[in-house]
Amino acid sequence: MQVADLGTPAALVDLDRLERNAARMAETARRLGVRLRPHVKTHKTLEAARLQVRGHFGGITVSTLAEAEFFAAGGFRDITYAVPIAPSKLRAAAELAARVDRLSLLVEHADAAAAVEACASERSRRLAVFLEVDCGGGRSGVDPTREESVALATRLAASPHLEFCGILTHAGQAYRCRDASKIRAVAAQERDVMVAFAARLQAGGVPVEEVSIGSTPTLALAEDLGGVTEARPGNYAFFDATQAAIGACTLEDVAFTVLVRVIGRHPERRELVIDGGALALSKDLGPTHVDPGCGFGVVLDAGGARLAGWRVVSLSQEHGVLRAAAPLPPAGFPIGSALRIVPNHSCLAAALFERYAVIRGGDVVDEWRPVKGW
Amino acid sequence: MQVADLGTPAALVDLDRLERNAARMAETARRLGVRLRPHVKTHKTLEAARLQVRGHFGGITVSTLAEAEFFAAGGFRDITYAVPIAPSKLRAAAELAARVDRLSLLVEHADAAAAVEACASERSRRLAVFLEVDCGGGRSGVDPTREESVALATRLAASPHLEFCGILTHAGQAYRCRDASKIRAVAAQERDVMVAFAARLQAGGVPVEEVSIGSTPTLALAEDLGGVTEARPGNYAFFDATQAAIGACTLEDVAFTVLVRVIGRHPERRELVIDGGALALSKDLGPTHVDPGCGFGVVLDAGGARLAGWRVVSLSQEHGVLRAAAPLPPAGFPIGSALRIVPNHSCLAAALFERYAVIRGGDVVDEWRPVKGW
Repeated sequence: MQVADLGTPAALVDLDRLERNAARMAETARRLGVRLRPHVKTHKTLEAARLQVRGHFGGITVSTLAEAEFFAAGGFRDITYAVPIAPSKLRAAAELAARVDRLSLLVEHADAAAAVEACASERSRRLAVFLEVDCGGGRSGVDPTREESVALATRLAASPHLEFCGILTHAGQAYRCRDASKIRAVAAQERDVMVAFAARLQAGGVPVEEVSIGSTPTLALAEDLGGVTEARPGNYAFFDATQAAIGACTLEDVAFTVLVRVIGRHPERRELVIDGGALALSKDLGPTHVDPGCGFGVVLDAGGARLAGWRVVSLSQEHGVLRAAAPLPPAGFPIGSALRIVPNHSCLAAALFERYAVIRGGDVVDEWRPVKGW
Repeated sequence: MQVADLGTPAALVDLDRLERNAARMAETARRLGVRLRPHVKTHKTLEAARLQVRGHFGGITVSTLAEAEFFAAGGFRDITYAVPIAPSKLRAAAELAARVDRLSLLVEHADAAAAVEACASERSRRLAVFLEVDCGGGRSGVDPTREESVALATRLAASPHLEFCGILTHAGQAYRCRDASKIRAVAAQERDVMVAFAARLQAGGVPVEEVSIGSTPTLALAEDLGGVTEARPGNYAFFDATQAAIGACTLEDVAFTVLVRVIGRHPERRELVIDGGALALSKDLGPTHVDPGCGFGVVLDAGGARLAGWRVVSLSQEHGVLRAAAPLPPAGFPIGSALRIVPNHSCLAAALFERYAVIRGGDVVDEWRPVKGW
C-alpha cells in the first residue's frame, strides 16, 4: 500500500525518522552518562517503545495505568508510572506491580504516601515509589527548598512498606523556552535542583539511588548531567512543531504527521478546507510564545516538504482551515489533493488515532495500534 | 455501581439532563415548524441518538463516514454526512448509500460535484447531495451572493446522477457571540441568507426541497424559522461550558462532565493537581471572548455543584492544574477526593473517551460506547 491510498485523516509515522530519533537520544544519554528510561506516552505502541529502549536497560516510563498494563503485557518489566498516584488506582497498581520486576509510583504529598503505605502493608508487599520534585515547572512535585519535602523523603525511605527509588522531576518549563540556549539553561537548572536536593537528602541519611530527570528538550540539549542517573524523555520519538520551534529538533526530524485531503477551496480568501480538524490535530495552541501566528500546525505537501506561507488558521471538529500568505495558484491544491500537517503537539494528536500508518518514503510498511484510555 | 466507585478520569453522562435537553430541542423544533435532524457527533452513541430523534422523523446528521456506518448498522436509515465529501471517500459512501434509505453528501465545489457525479454514474445509482452554503461562518460552503454558486446548484439539480436535496448551512459564527441577543441575530441571519438563496434558486428553476440550518445556539434561541425546513443541532445533547457562557444554556443543563481526582495539593499556590489532563478535557480554549480567564473548563464538586472561584489553569497530557481565588481550606480537597469538570467543548472532550458512565444522580445506570475514527 502507498501513502496515497490511505483514507484521511490518517496518522503517519515515518519509520526512518523514528529510528533515527531513537538512536540519537539513546546515544545522547550514553554520552551524558545517564541511563535512558524513555517515556512511551507520545506513541503508546509496543513497536516504538522497543526502538526507544535499544542499547539501554529496557525500562520505560508511562503516563497511565492502562499504558503500564499494556506494556507489561508486551514484555516490559521495569516501568515508572510518572503521574502522582491517586489512591483509587492503588489496588490495580499493586496487582500489576506483582507481575513485573518493578512498577514505580510517584508521590508528592504525605497523604498519598500514607495511602501507598497502607496498600503495601495490606498486601504484605513493598511498593516502589519516587518522590516527585518540582524543579521549576510549577505543576506537580514537592518544593525541594522546604523542610517538609525532606521530611517526606525521609518518611518514604524509612517505611518498611516502601522501596524508595529516589527523586524524579520533569522540567516542563523547557517548553516555555524560545531557543536552544534557554533550553540549555533549563537543563542545567533541572540538574542542579535535583543534584542539590539529592545531596541534602543523603547528608540527612536518606539514600537516593535514582536521580531521574525527564523532558525531551532538556535531554536533547543538555551539556552535562553529572549527578543525574536516568532520563525520561518521550516526545523525541516523534517530535512536533513545538519542539522544532523552540529549537529541540528540526522539522526534518519530526516523525509524526497527519495526512489530510482538500475538501473545500476558497481562493477569494486564500483558504483551503481540509478533512482534518480538532479530532485529528488536537487544539493545542503550540509555540505561540515563539510565533504568535503559528496556528495549529505546520503545513506540508503530500511528500512532506514544507509549504511556505501556509498556516492552519482554525479547527472545528472535522474541518481544518488553511490560509496562504500568497494567492492560490489557479490549478493548485484541487479538491481531493493530499497534504500533511505537522501537529503542534504530537502526543495529543497521536492519542486521537486508533492506528498509525507506518511509512518508509511513500510506502506503508506496517500498522501500529496505540493503547487507549486509563 | 456508584459514581464514587469509578476510576478517573471518567466521562459522566447525566441521563436526566440528556433526556431533558433532547425533549426540549425536539419541542423547540416543533414549535418553530422545522423537522429535527439532530447531529450525533457530540456523543457518537446509538443510545443518545435514539433520545434525540424521539418525536421527529428519525433522520440524523453525522460528521464522519465511520459514524454514518455505525449509525446505519444501529438502525438509522436517513443520514446526512455534513462535511464536504472528499473524492477518496466516495466509494465507501456509495456502498453505504445503497444500504440505507438516504445518505446525503455535501458539496461546495464544482470539482467535488464532478467526482460525486462520476461515482454515481459508474454505479448507475443516484447519490443524494446538498449544496453547502456559507451563511457567515467563513468555514466551508459556497458564497450565496456569487453567480457561480447559483450555477453549481443548477448543475447539481440538473444532473441525472444526483438527487439534489437542497441547501444546507451551519452558523458557526454563533459561537463567537457573547449573549443570547447576539445569537438571536445570528439565527435570523442564518435563516435570512438561506431563505433568500433558496428563493433565488427557485426563481431560476432550481427546486429546493430542503433548507437545512444547523447549530445548537441558533436553534435554541431562534424566534422564527419561516422558510427553513430542517435543523441539525447537535451539541445540545450534552451542552458545555462554552454554550453556558454564550447564553445558549445554563450550567445546570450540561449533561457531560469529567470525573477527576486530586493527585497533588499545593496550598502555597492555591492549586490542586488532578488526574484529568488534555487527554480527558481537550485543549479547547473555550469562551475566552466572554471570559478571558475561563481556563479549560468549569470546576464542580463531586456532586455537580459549581465551586466558585476555581479555574482549570493548565493542562498537560495527564495532569490538570486547578487554581482557587481564595486560600484552600486546610482540610479541604484532600488527595484522592473527587471533583467534576465541565469541559469547554463537550464534542472534543467526549471524543477522547472509549466509554461513558451514564448516571442518574449518584448511580451509574449504564455504559455507552461511542464510535471512533473516520
